[in-house]
Amino acid sequence: MGMIGGGIGSFIGDVHRKASSIDGMIELVCGAFSSSAEKSKKSGQELFLPANRCYGSFEEMILEEKKLPEGERMDFVSIVTPNHMHFAPAKMALENGFHVVCDKPMTLTIEEAEALEKLVTETGLIFALTHNYPGNPMVKQARAMVANGDLGAIRKVNVQYHQGWLATAVEKTGQKQASWRVDPTKSGVGGALGDIGTHAENLVEFITGMELSEIAADLGRVGAGRVLDDDGNVLLRFANGAKGTMSFSQIATGEENNLIVRVYGEKGSLEWHQENPNELITRWLDEPKKIYTPNGNNLYPESIAASRIPSGHPEGYLEAFANVYRNFATHLMARLEGKPIQRPDYPTVADGVRGVKFIHAAVKSDKNNAAWVKL
Amino acid sequence: MGMIGGGIGSFIGDVHRKASSIDGMIELVCGAFSSSAEKSKKSGQELFLPANRCYGSFEEMILEEKKLPEGERMDFVSIVTPNHMHFAPAKMALENGFHVVCDKPMTLTIEEAEALEKLVTETGLIFALTHNYPGNPMVKQARAMVANGDLGAIRKVNVQYHQGWLATAVEKTGQKQASWRVDPTKSGVGGALGDIGTHAENLVEFITGMELSEIAADLGRVGAGRVLDDDGNVLLRFANGAKGTMSFSQIATGEENNLIVRVYGEKGSLEWHQENPNELITRWLDEPKKIYTPNGNNLYPESIAASRIPSGHPEGYLEAFANVYRNFATHLMARLEGKPIQRPDYPTVADGVRGVKFIHAAVKSDKNNAAWVKL
Amino acid sequence: MGMIGGGIGSFIGDVHRKASSIDGMIELVCGAFSSSAEKSKKSGQELFLPANRCYGSFEEMILEEKKLPEGERMDFVSIVTPNHMHFAPAKMALENGFHVVCDKPMTLTIEEAEALEKLVTETGLIFALTHNYPGNPMVKQARAMVANGDLGAIRKVNVQYHQGWLATAVEKTGQKQASWRVDPTKSGVGGALGDIGTHAENLVEFITGMELSEIAADLGRVGAGRVLDDDGNVLLRFANGAKGTMSFSQIATGEENNLIVRVYGEKGSLEWHQENPNELITRWLDEPKKIYTPNGNNLYPESIAASRIPSGHPEGYLEAFANVYRNFATHLMARLEGKPIQRPDYPTVADGVRGVKFIHAAVKSDKNNAAWVKL
Amino acid sequence: MGMIGGGIGSFIGDVHRKASSIDGMIELVCGAFSSSAEKSKKSGQELFLPANRCYGSFEEMILEEKKLPEGERMDFVSIVTPNHMHFAPAKMALENGFHVVCDKPMTLTIEEAEALEKLVTETGLIFALTHNYPGNPMVKQARAMVANGDLGAIRKVNVQYHQGWLATAVEKTGQKQASWRVDPTKSGVGGALGDIGTHAENLVEFITGMELSEIAADLGRVGAGRVLDDDGNVLLRFANGAKGTMSFSQIATGEENNLIVRVYGEKGSLEWHQENPNELITRWLDEPKKIYTPNGNNLYPESIAASRIPSGHPEGYLEAFANVYRNFATHLMARLEGKPIQRPDYPTVADGVRGVKFIHAAVKSDKNNAAWVKL
Repeated sequence: MGMIGGGIGSFIGDVHRKASSIDGMIELVCGAFSSSAEKSKKSGQELFLPANRCYGSFEEMILEEKKLPEGERMDFVSIVTPNHMHFAPAKMALENGFHVVCDKPMTLTIEEAEALEKLVTETGLIFALTHNYPGNPMVKQARAMVANGDLGAIRKVNVQYHQGWLATAVEKTGQKQASWRVDPTKSGVGGALGDIGTHAENLVEFITGMELSEIAADLGRVGAGRVLDDDGNVLLRFANGAKGTMSFSQIATGEENNLIVRVYGEKGSLEWHQENPNELITRWLDEPKKIYTPNGNNLYPESIAASRIPSGHPEGYLEAFANVYRNFATHLMARLEGKPIQRPDYPTVADGVRGVKFIHAAVKSDKNNAAWVKL
Repeated sequence: MGMIGGGIGSFIGDVHRKASSIDGMIELVCGAFSSSAEKSKKSGQELFLPANRCYGSFEEMILEEKKLPEGERMDFVSIVTPNHMHFAPAKMALENGFHVVCDKPMTLTIEEAEALEKLVTETGLIFALTHNYPGNPMVKQARAMVANGDLGAIRKVNVQYHQGWLATAVEKTGQKQASWRVDPTKSGVGGALGDIGTHAENLVEFITGMELSEIAADLGRVGAGRVLDDDGNVLLRFANGAKGTMSFSQIATGEENNLIVRVYGEKGSLEWHQENPNELITRWLDEPKKIYTPNGNNLYPESIAASRIPSGHPEGYLEAFANVYRNFATHLMARLEGKPIQRPDYPTVADGVRGVKFIHAAVKSDKNNAAWVKL
Repeated sequence: MGMIGGGIGSFIGDVHRKASSIDGMIELVCGAFSSSAEKSKKSGQELFLPANRCYGSFEEMILEEKKLPEGERMDFVSIVTPNHMHFAPAKMALENGFHVVCDKPMTLTIEEAEALEKLVTETGLIFALTHNYPGNPMVKQARAMVANGDLGAIRKVNVQYHQGWLATAVEKTGQKQASWRVDPTKSGVGGALGDIGTHAENLVEFITGMELSEIAADLGRVGAGRVLDDDGNVLLRFANGAKGTMSFSQIATGEENNLIVRVYGEKGSLEWHQENPNELITRWLDEPKKIYTPNGNNLYPESIAASRIPSGHPEGYLEAFANVYRNFATHLMARLEGKPIQRPDYPTVADGVRGVKFIHAAVKSDKNNAAWVKL
Repeated sequence: MGMIGGGIGSFIGDVHRKASSIDGMIELVCGAFSSSAEKSKKSGQELFLPANRCYGSFEEMILEEKKLPEGERMDFVSIVTPNHMHFAPAKMALENGFHVVCDKPMTLTIEEAEALEKLVTETGLIFALTHNYPGNPMVKQARAMVANGDLGAIRKVNVQYHQGWLATAVEKTGQKQASWRVDPTKSGVGGALGDIGTHAENLVEFITGMELSEIAADLGRVGAGRVLDDDGNVLLRFANGAKGTMSFSQIATGEENNLIVRVYGEKGSLEWHQENPNELITRWLDEPKKIYTPNGNNLYPESIAASRIPSGHPEGYLEAFANVYRNFATHLMARLEGKPIQRPDYPTVADGVRGVKFIHAAVKSDKNNAAWVKL
């Protein structure tokens, strides 16, 4: 793995490194951790990387690594930069034969997103988008229950993703996480929308296997002087007729990372809370509420496969994230070994396109007083 | 108290009787429990009422009771009939000098609602609407915290009210609760909207002290053949600029009575779950999450006044309902004794008007593809 | 009902009045609310009782009421005095033909307890002990599940009853609840042991249907100068070989009324929390955790009978208490009408004897350095 | 790191490998994964280790690694074998100059435990015992709150550790985890006592900073034919006069890994649930319940240091385990670099001695009908 972005001190870079290493399948071999060659080298040094594989730019990394013999050079890049720096390195990596792991939202524009999708199709390379929440064992169980018809046809979906870290003007305090996220040149047209709204959108589509057909979005710019949304309330309509709501916010004072999804079907329903991820609450027409737990009783194989340790031993954010990497790596290894490849169990470039379309649809709807916009 | 509707076997009639009696301030002295004089008498008998005060119609009750000497005759009527039978008895009671307790939604039309409001103003009589959830000690605390500025300006509100009892076609099984609720001649233009959406609307306005200014409602008629909504997803805008979502449903399979409200302010936020009503969850910029409990530490007087027993001894639905009656009765007794009257601590005819306007706005919005409609 | 003790301002008197009136089956007709005739009359007046039926002593009440014609006189006494004042009025009531509802612990000594048991047997009168927790719908469900063998043979039981209201020396502040409870002349040999330990003991025996055979108790007198226990830790052994622990405390700082019971059987186990009483958590060998709720899916009839309102509408402490009164009243009415009487569904004089034996066994064990003492 | 035991398929070996690698500070360089040289090599191969560093015995590994130049040879051994195989390799490692990480319980006998303690003192080598629960950020916070006097003097402690995986006779099904744990030649004199009772003991002493002075233990051998305890109920007395209970079980049907600790002080109390580890519940004399969260508001530095990711992003069992390794590694690196060494923030050989004494005291007490035994 060669990392693009994520120098020492970066929250998400560190998460990617830990998550990719937990299962011993992926090794960080090089990086372009910073646009400053010096900083990049320093970051690499703290990560025990050889100096000659710490690059000052992603272009350099891709070109230099390509020159190395197969088996020695990196197999794939992991792009953990701010949003505006996803497209260029992803494109160049694909064009030079490297597989790609890319953070979300995938690109700033729909055109870029579709360009990447086209490239992936043409090159046949593997592309994983790091929506981590589908990596949770209980989310896998939720998806499997819906897919197996346990809930019957889905009728209603509610999702909320509430954080409070932008409740005050932290972007004016020099907090780096905040400053690029409120800046449209770096974040794109969506603020909280792109940062967490896309997680909510992806999670809902992942669990239900249903596509959003149209949305009506009422965005808020609550923090003084913010040009991007920091809050949103959205009506949802799905292709199968199901309806629902989405609420996301980064100004929900005191909330930490409160992502909750509720899915209601004809025969049963389910509820999952990211902050207590080791429970899947299910409700039924004729039975009491049942709580599933990772590696606990009566799970689908997809869920069991996503746990590393026995039931009652909590797993968390890093392990869910690691599952995205593990499934990507498993897929990649099968590819490298010429084995038959199964349906990817990680978000793909297609999910990336969906996410970018969602962002743009929401912004368009909001500009038009929350009128319906098709995805 | 003279009861209109609520014969033996009626869920809500029994609730009103229990709730009104818990504090020993209100006595049921007569009733028109049914439109059949015989059935009414039978219900009254089981309630230990004298036969001559069990009437075959509300008209008869109002006229006959009026003839009794003051002190002996009922002081007020309690109207617990289906929605279409609220207006006529409320109007007649007010016109004949009786105070009124009336179930929600107050009337079928905005005209009726405003007519009652006018009558209340003109007669000076007391009118309580039995939204019971504001009776909860933790809801009182929530309102007091907002009113005292503990949360700062409110920025966002999310409310859900999910039930699952109409997830299947129970109205076709002879279930009486269901059959009138899906019938527009009895329910009015709103189905779940009127039945529980109004509770959500009232709760939000009660806690925040803010008025909804406009809504965009996407209603569902999920059950086969239903003409009234049994599900709804709504965008909310408040007069002060706050925004939010409402989701209500009676087809949320497996849900019992899952009313949850979240209110986010500049400085803090709060969350309340009706199914576990003895907790008020609060979150803060600089402090850990704090959980308030009835009669527990650090409460406002309004909240303490709403508890009957020490902290840790759970109170529930009936006690909250009883608080509406108790506060009404306290108000009424003050009136009867000529004492100065304070601001009502129960929902009034004005809340009833708000609720009916909310129903009609939601229906209008839904007909117009969830366009914004002002209240 | 004639009440003994429980004058205005008394916590438990008010609870008994509310609980006995909720179902409209029991009417308070007289009382000896205080040892001062004047105070008793004043209390009665506030309760809308005629002055001539407000007595200055329980002896007077029993004798005077006896003179009244049947149908007019009270049917039973309800004794809500401090512990040392239970035996005498209970004995006299039984000797004069009145049924008895009595607060717990039943008496100060085992001799008194057995004397009452003998009197009840001899007179054939009905005696209910107001342990209220068995009145909860979820506790009824728990008992029914054990009785029906759903859990298999019970192997382990853990119970805790933690309060914090005596964490500081409130008895020195004039708090009446505290002052008599720390006084051995009024409380008896047990402090927290008698006040809440007996609730824990009764609840465990009620749910499991098993008798404690021996206990080893290590009591604490944590508050400065206290002669009675305010904390206890106990090992439990049951007749069938099951073992367990009990912990009770009134110095558990910040706890409100945190009664939790866990029962483990061969095939399944259950857990109930008094502070969130509307859930019964069950765990199984081969199934996910299931949460039962009052009036929810898959309940035993005994549980359904203990709920007044639909699922999702929380009931609490008063309703559980009311169930004790309702079941007593149902039993009593069947008796009065000469109908066949079923097995009592409320704690009886036998439970009272068990409780007093438990107190004395614990005190004896504690004096002997927590050696085992048989009950 | 050189691992002893923990071949592929071993639960705890895999946990140690993941936990030790998360922070990128520790590298597995060799192993004696099995007593069969062939199996050991095979395990090592799957872990990408060179064949010549996969040894057939811990003796061979220690001797061979010792021959390697400093900087190349392993720095420490990690012993993850069943209990009876802890002492010999730990002793030999220390005698040959290697630092030690050792699983719990440390040894079978008190003599062995004290011998290791003596060796550690004499050699000055570093010894960490892998009680993982003290690694949790909320447990760190709990300890810091007690240490800083936030709760005042501690008066009462309750701890339970309930599992259900031995509720049936799984040891007869060939389940390896079960078969050695019920075998006294491998487990030692304690069954569940040694396996999880020691975790409970260690957690309580870690949080409170208090030493158990004496215990009274009533052990159960519930599973048919078991010679070791699979259940236990224990009274606790601490040196400072505090009292409490411990309950542990591996026959608590349906329980997963339900470790709960409650600590009550004069001014406040705290409660922590291992299965939902990202909350620390605190209760207070004069304030509402407060819930602390990892990396959330108002934490002590010791707690913050134990989190890797922002608040609201759950961490779990592996991260807590990793904290033990990280703190050990930090300590070790300081040593290797000659930097001043701070007080260890991981369980040490002294904790190991405490644990073994606890096991033997409990067994002795149980044999004497739960009489008190001093530690």
